[in-house]
Amino acid sequence: MIQLIPIGTIHTPFKETRGMPIQPAGAKGVEGTVEVLPELADGLKDLDGFSHAILLYHFHQCFGYQLRVTPFLDKEERGVFATRAPKRPNPIGLSVVEVTGVESNIIHVKNIDILDGTPLLDIKPYVPKFDTPEFSRTGWLERTQENTPETRADERFK
Amino acid sequence: MIQLIPIGTIHTPFKETRGMPIQPAGAKGVEGTVEVLPELADGLKDLDGFSHAILLYHFHQCFGYQLRVTPFLDKEERGVFATRAPKRPNPIGLSVVEVTGVESNIIHVKNIDILDGTPLLDIKPYVPKFDTPEFSRTGWLERTQENTPETRADERFK
Repeated sequence: MIQLIPIGTIHTPFKETRGMPIQPAGAKGVEGTVEVLPELADGLKDLDGFSHAILLYHFHQCFGYQLRVTPFLDKEERGVFATRAPKRPNPIGLSVVEVTGVESNIIHVKNIDILDGTPLLDIKPYVPKFDTPEFSRTGWLERTQENTPETRADERFK
Repeated sequence: MIQLIPIGTIHTPFKETRGMPIQPAGAKGVEGTVEVLPELADGLKDLDGFSHAILLYHFHQCFGYQLRVTPFLDKEERGVFATRAPKRPNPIGLSVVEVTGVESNIIHVKNIDILDGTPLLDIKPYVPKFDTPEFSRTGWLERTQENTPETRADERFK
């Protein structure tokens, strides 16, 4: 058993799951703030040099998990580890957001697709050399990922 | 407090931290396997359609954290959240690896930079539309990320 502590809280305009964008690609321009515990603020030094950060967070509104899910972008059941659905054995979410500024313990971000009040677990700088493969193949998402901007969440993963 | 369970184990040729590659970019061609608990194998369906997966894992050899760290790729102290150093308030690691095959509960992967025996927390499909911003700026790593392939770890984060 691994125990984690929330290191802060994510604030966004999304008060409920229904109708939310399903990825940052669907949340273009949406602004939010990431509030880190004041005692951890020193760890944010140098983050303002990066245009993007990877946020890891707790899907705190999801309870239990399913091994097969029907994702928002598909009509077929897929293995949960081949999807980004929140009902996972370890309910950790991941979003790459744009960093627009850092002031003491607050990070201002853009293109955020996260529920308001979500507990923050980690912040990592986005680094293309580390995080972007030179090629990629995307299975069942090959065509449907293009529908991400228009697709909205519903309550299927509550 | 958030409790997670290891959902499997990562097997690699790296038996100790010293001398390890520091990112998948430094582990080109290195092969490993991700062994998922047999009872979760059904969640791997459709993952073989993706060329790359994001692995989240527990930095199980790191105890405690520092808010300022001197990363392997730099000589200056940086805020921990502006680095990928393992001594973080929540010791979660993230690597984008190439998926070369999936057989029942085993994923064969390439370009793996993870310590042998590392507890696995989550697997997500890598999707460029979700995970790759259209532009990026990388702060203190702007120049030094090019040194990633040759840089090796030492024991500074033990």
